[in-house]
This record gives sequence, C-alpha cells and structure tokens, in this order.
Amino acid sequence: MDDRPIGVFDSGIGGLTVLKEIMEQLPGEDIVYFGDTARIPYGTRSKETVIKYFFQSVRFLLTKDIKAIVIACNTASALAMEEAQEAFEIPLLGVIEPGAKAAVSATKNSIIGVIGTEGTINSQSYQRKIRQMLPSAEIIGIPCPLFVSIVEEGWENTDVAYLTAKKYLLELKEHNIDSLVLGCTHYPALRYTINKVLGDNVILVNPAYETAKAAKIMLKEKNLLSNKADGGKCRFYVSDNPEKFKRVGGNMLKKEIASVEKVNIESL
Amino acid sequence: MDDRPIGVFDSGIGGLTVLKEIMEQLPGEDIVYFGDTARIPYGTRSKETVIKYFFQSVRFLLTKDIKAIVIACNTASALAMEEAQEAFEIPLLGVIEPGAKAAVSATKNSIIGVIGTEGTINSQSYQRKIRQMLPSAEIIGIPCPLFVSIVEEGWENTDVAYLTAKKYLLELKEHNIDSLVLGCTHYPALRYTINKVLGDNVILVNPAYETAKAAKIMLKEKNLLSNKADGGKCRFYVSDNPEKFKRVGGNMLKKEIASVEKVNIESL
Repeated sequence: MDDRPIGVFDSGIGGLTVLKEIMEQLPGEDIVYFGDTARIPYGTRSKETVIKYFFQSVRFLLTKDIKAIVIACNTASALAMEEAQEAFEIPLLGVIEPGAKAAVSATKNSIIGVIGTEGTINSQSYQRKIRQMLPSAEIIGIPCPLFVSIVEEGWENTDVAYLTAKKYLLELKEHNIDSLVLGCTHYPALRYTINKVLGDNVILVNPAYETAKAAKIMLKEKNLLSNKADGGKCRFYVSDNPEKFKRVGGNMLKKEIASVEKVNIESL
Repeated sequence: MDDRPIGVFDSGIGGLTVLKEIMEQLPGEDIVYFGDTARIPYGTRSKETVIKYFFQSVRFLLTKDIKAIVIACNTASALAMEEAQEAFEIPLLGVIEPGAKAAVSATKNSIIGVIGTEGTINSQSYQRKIRQMLPSAEIIGIPCPLFVSIVEEGWENTDVAYLTAKKYLLELKEHNIDSLVLGCTHYPALRYTINKVLGDNVILVNPAYETAKAAKIMLKEKNLLSNKADGGKCRFYVSDNPEKFKRVGGNMLKKEIASVEKVNIESL
C-alpha cells in the first residue's frame, strides 16, 4: 500500500478527461496534475522538442513525491514515453497501449481507424502497438488538427464540426473501419458528431477511460494502491494561465477547482 | 546608410507574409528571420509568458548584429512591444500601429472591425490605437481562433472556412462595419472567404503590407536604409522543426528556402 499521489501529465487541459476517469475508478487516490499550458500544443512539435518538454514536466512532478505517472497526452505518450522509461525510474503509463488494446478487443473485421494530432499519427505508435497485438490488422491513421480548436471553441455539435468531421473521416469510411481510436484527449468531446458521420457500426474507443482502468491494474500489480477508501485530493499545476485553467477546467470536471499554481517549467 | 540586416520576428511561419512584403518594398535589405516554432501559438498565452518568449527572441536576434526589428506577430506586437521598447535600445516596429492607421484611412462610417487571436483582441491594442487616431470610432473586436488551424490545414476556400467565417463575422456584419483589420498573420489567406461573407463594401486591411511600408519610412527617417540597390539576403532561424519550416515556408514565399537553422531559444 502506498498513499503517495499519482502524477498526471498533459500538455494542457485535455488531460482532465483522463483525470476524471481516474477519480471515478480510483476514488481513494491523491493526484498531482500538471498541464504544460505555456507550450501547448505538443501535437505539431518535433520528437526532440516533445521529449525535452515532457522530461521537464516529469522532473517537476517528481518534486511532488509521486508514486507513478499517467501520461494523459497522446502526443507525449507516442513520442516520449519510451525515452522517459529509460531515463526515469518511476512507473509510467501512457494512453497508447490501453487505447490500442481496446481497439483490438472491439474490432471484428480487423480494420481499425486511428485519429490524433500530426505528431501522434506520424509517430505510428498506435499503429505499431495494434499490429503487435493483431498482426493481420489493417490500420488507417488520420491526423485531424482542426478538431482541437473546434473543441476549445465549444463548437463540438455545430455544422462546422460536422463538415470538418466529414472531410477528415471520409477515408476511414471508405476503408470500412469498424472501430476508431479517439487518439487525442480533446476528441471524445466530438463523439456524437463523429458517430453521426461514421454511423453506429463503428465503435469509438476512448483511451482516457481505458487508461484509468489500466492505471488501476498497474497500481494493484505493483502494490501501490492507496489505503484510503475514498476522498482522494487533487492538486493542480500549470506553466501558464492558471486563471483560465481554473475556469475552463472547472467546467470540464463539473466541479470547482479551488486553486491552480503556476510553475516555471523551463527552468527544470 | 546602414548595411546591417533587419530582424523579423514571428511566433512561427505566418510572419513570412510580412517578410515577403518587406522583400518587395525594400529589395536591398538583408534580413534575419526568427520564428519561435517551439512555442507557437502565442495567441492563447498570458501577457507575462508572451513577454518572456518575445524577450528571448529579441536577445537571439541581437546576436545577429541587426539594425532594427520588425515584429510580424500581432500577439507579440499587442502584448510585448511597449515592454520591449523600454527594455531594449534597438528600433522596434510592430504591426498594430500600421494596421490601425490603414483602417482609420479606409473607414468612412467610422465603424471598424478587428479580428485576431484571443491575446490580440483582449489586449485592446488595435482598439486603443484606432481610438487615439479617430476618437469617434466604433470598434468591434472578435477573436477567431479557428482561422489559424484552417489556414494551416490549407482549407482557406472550403465550405468549412465559409461556415466558420459566417459564424465569427455575423456580429461585424450586424454592426455594419465598413473596414476590417485582419489582425493575425494567417488571416490574409482567408480574404476571399471573408469577402464572400462580408461583401465588397467592407475594406480588408492587411497589416503585413502596411507594416512593410512603415518599415521603409522608419529606416529612412533614422537613416538606416541599406546602400545596396537590390539582392538583399535572407537567413532563417526557428526554435523547432526546421525541415517543416523549409517546406511550408518555401511554399508560402514561392521560392526555395536554402537553409534553416535551429536555435535553443529557452537558454537565452
């Protein structure tokens, strides 16, 4: 048993979807959340830069006496997790493996779509992981950069969202996919619009949910679960705009965020 | 006369529109361009962070023995130019004043629209500058964050762009504006779509063009124009993804970019 907090990393605010799932599935755990809002988005940056930014973030989280880190950001999971596993001793869990596993369980025809940022899709991380588990899989990856801005604008269910989804997802439809990984923390907010474009026969996989499940299993295996039955506390840190994080994050979590501290991440 | 290069700053690649205008209007000038691609976009960041990032960029440009800096980025011009003028001795020219001046010249009914990033619009920089020159002006500022992603996706003339423009610009139309400042380096690429929504009676002001004109005047006044009649050379530096900059930037400038160097901007 280990009452130290879990660290949750994201490039910004989108990782609150993963946090929310962890809070529901692991209500006894304390959490330290860090969002690198001064340098969001990671999705268009080079691998080298994503590694640098993510390592600084890990170094910050390590100052908070955490027992493990969940990487909510798909891009950081895709581009920097392996390197971080070599560089740091703390247990790390990214969203790629749980997301890939769920897609493999869901598919019947072995034709799987993956959508995400440029960085995530071009890294081939989901594609590789899926192929390891299901070598016969046909996988179609499409970067959908506009989706992030649409969600941040609150336009998830507008005609702009629908037309954008139609443009991006046409190729997936033509390939007859039967499951789709929503490989960016923002995308689950678009699930109704995506469902409208792809139809009910395509199962939408939300890695946030799968990752929280995987976190529980990992902590149990490593004997790191907290002793407390419930009432886990959450502390929030960002590298820019704490006030905005408080406001928008509160809306996302559907409960007030009492305080958010700003971190000088570049010095780490 | 002064043959040293002009420094041009942008948060990324959008400032190449300003560079292009400078190259046309000042063909004899050498230029050093820096794009802070590791931390783009500036438009959603706090004033404090924009100042920090911009100051680091100025310190980099100063290592290149430049004679003046043109700030192509609207957000940096809006949030950090005054502070930089106090902190650095080098002549600085931003896009806000030239853009505001052109809007004031263009308007007949004194009802002016301004579009830009969240940071630019909320800073009220354009609004204040216009009001200084035309106190009776009615100014409507609208942040249009999706426009940047649309341009970066190459979707300027699609139905997604048209619907998005209709959504953002409706209020400007209702206010009966007769001129509109395109207050973000990416937006001039959307001028046909914006024109389709607002109609021919609304004059679109492109601060990139106005800023190049103002740069020529400033250099002349300060006796800093180059002696060379033409053939000015341009060197390019970025903080991330030089290969991508080379490819996309070459398309924007419609000529090949021979080399782009990567700068470790955070150490400055």
